[in-house]
Amino acid sequence: MHILITGGAGMIGRKLTERLVKDGGLNGQALERLTLVDVVAPTAPAGFTGKTDTFSTDIAAPGAAAQALAHRPDVIFHLAAVVSGEAEQNFDKGYHVNLDGTRALLEAIRQIGPDYHPKVVFTSSIAVYGAPFPDAIPDDFHLTPLLSYGTQKAICELLLADYSRHNILDGVSVRLPSIVVRPGKPNKAASGFFSGIIREPLAGQEGILPVDKDVLHWHASPRSAVGFLIHAAGLTREQLGPRINLAMPGVCCTVGEQIEALRRVAGDKVAARVRYAPDPFIKGIVAGWPRRFDPRRALALGFRAEAMFDDIIRAHIEDELGGRVPA
Amino acid sequence: MHILITGGAGMIGRKLTERLVKDGGLNGQALERLTLVDVVAPTAPAGFTGKTDTFSTDIAAPGAAAQALAHRPDVIFHLAAVVSGEAEQNFDKGYHVNLDGTRALLEAIRQIGPDYHPKVVFTSSIAVYGAPFPDAIPDDFHLTPLLSYGTQKAICELLLADYSRHNILDGVSVRLPSIVVRPGKPNKAASGFFSGIIREPLAGQEGILPVDKDVLHWHASPRSAVGFLIHAAGLTREQLGPRINLAMPGVCCTVGEQIEALRRVAGDKVAARVRYAPDPFIKGIVAGWPRRFDPRRALALGFRAEAMFDDIIRAHIEDELGGRVPA
Repeated sequence: MHILITGGAGMIGRKLTERLVKDGGLNGQALERLTLVDVVAPTAPAGFTGKTDTFSTDIAAPGAAAQALAHRPDVIFHLAAVVSGEAEQNFDKGYHVNLDGTRALLEAIRQIGPDYHPKVVFTSSIAVYGAPFPDAIPDDFHLTPLLSYGTQKAICELLLADYSRHNILDGVSVRLPSIVVRPGKPNKAASGFFSGIIREPLAGQEGILPVDKDVLHWHASPRSAVGFLIHAAGLTREQLGPRINLAMPGVCCTVGEQIEALRRVAGDKVAARVRYAPDPFIKGIVAGWPRRFDPRRALALGFRAEAMFDDIIRAHIEDELGGRVPA
Repeated sequence: MHILITGGAGMIGRKLTERLVKDGGLNGQALERLTLVDVVAPTAPAGFTGKTDTFSTDIAAPGAAAQALAHRPDVIFHLAAVVSGEAEQNFDKGYHVNLDGTRALLEAIRQIGPDYHPKVVFTSSIAVYGAPFPDAIPDDFHLTPLLSYGTQKAICELLLADYSRHNILDGVSVRLPSIVVRPGKPNKAASGFFSGIIREPLAGQEGILPVDKDVLHWHASPRSAVGFLIHAAGLTREQLGPRINLAMPGVCCTVGEQIEALRRVAGDKVAARVRYAPDPFIKGIVAGWPRRFDPRRALALGFRAEAMFDDIIRAHIEDELGGRVPA
């Protein structure tokens, strides 16, 4: 099996690559070849004995998608995207990468012709939803995004469903919760602080909280995100039906509950490193974001996230900190 | 006031132009200038003393949208579209006109700069919805189109909302019911028969019914469609809020009830001219279409359609047949 990952240098892309290499395959088929593309060249994974092609490209540039598809990958994980804060502040870049890039990929698949029919797993986002919301968002709730990022993701979902319906490809998209705890440095996502208030205190540093403690949100760990993508790749067309864009399960909690979970897992000293520093720009964006879902279809299809926020912190400690809470 | 109509040569475009000229203005401002564009040059309206520019163009072609906007229209009615049956059978043309054309128009508005901020009224469609449906579709029901046409309309709605949110323009879109009775010759819309079974019998000809009589659907007259567009142009941003894409009111009835209404309005002899000739392609498309709405927001905002199908037939007789049912 040959797998293409766009956005292969990103956090989820790297973790997905690692997991695929560790599993040695996908859907019961051995992993023989990986193609990893991103705006910066992804690193070839350690310990993989199959063929790996990595290259840096703007997937929306003419010919780039065709190049990525040159060896006809069986499964495509399309993760490449400009994050929410950046897409909001750089209108052209957001549309170029998030909309034109996806459309270029889908069109390049179509141009190969009717013999080629890959599985395409797309990372959408809960940013496709926009306030006001019911207490728990049902699977049939409308998409009224309040950010360009969510608009672009919603458009890509529609394109993916139409290309699937025309039998050009087998698409599925997972609307990821906010992924916490993101390792490494903060990126430009407006949701970055949800990770920062856990990651930085665990690293002995101050974690900045730009919103009030009663902000309620929907989370899953990077480990769960990778699990969603792999599970999605294994779903058949018959299981999915025509509604291929799925809200994922997650953990609903307030920022205050996040901090209390941090206290339970890592102690008072760590939890005390969170500092409140209100940011009206971030507050404004987050105010329009969804808080809680009732993701019945995803649960029925077998998707699983953590049961509580403590588990999300523990996943971070296990996967990123060698299993230990630093003193 | 200067008004631009794209799709100005189409049925709704011509009726909208006539109505605007007859009213002499819009939103209390006198109509001074009209720009009418379409793939075939629209006819300049009779009886209009202001300036009219008409030209034929592909709105998606480079520079075409900028040309249409050269004199900075205050209000833009964006009606230009490839209809449902054609967009389904000609994938490239559908995306080119329905998606790229709209995006070109929105981008051309943006490129003019922050001093220009037109009202943009977009004709969307109930084809943005896809089965299965609840008995009556609520305003917050998700969009899962089952046609490329509906996909393209849903994408344009998302773009319009995002461009509005960025204060590039003031957008509003109306999801038109099936518009019956369409005058003139049948077009390639899969919904064409809903008109044909009324129009042809009234013209002394056979009306072909390609679906079963129990098919339930959602209708409004061309007169109501024009009314929706004009009403939408008068709504303020404050009235609309961020959710600018609105399902319109209509008449819900079965095809059998349509024929019974024809019998009541025009007599047995006319109603007997409907002939059942099943068409699996049309049946398949129509099976995924919405049947009934609960369009509370549109009603609260003052949109009005006919009360019953008899009124839709009478509107056709008044507007197209000089008020008389032919013998």
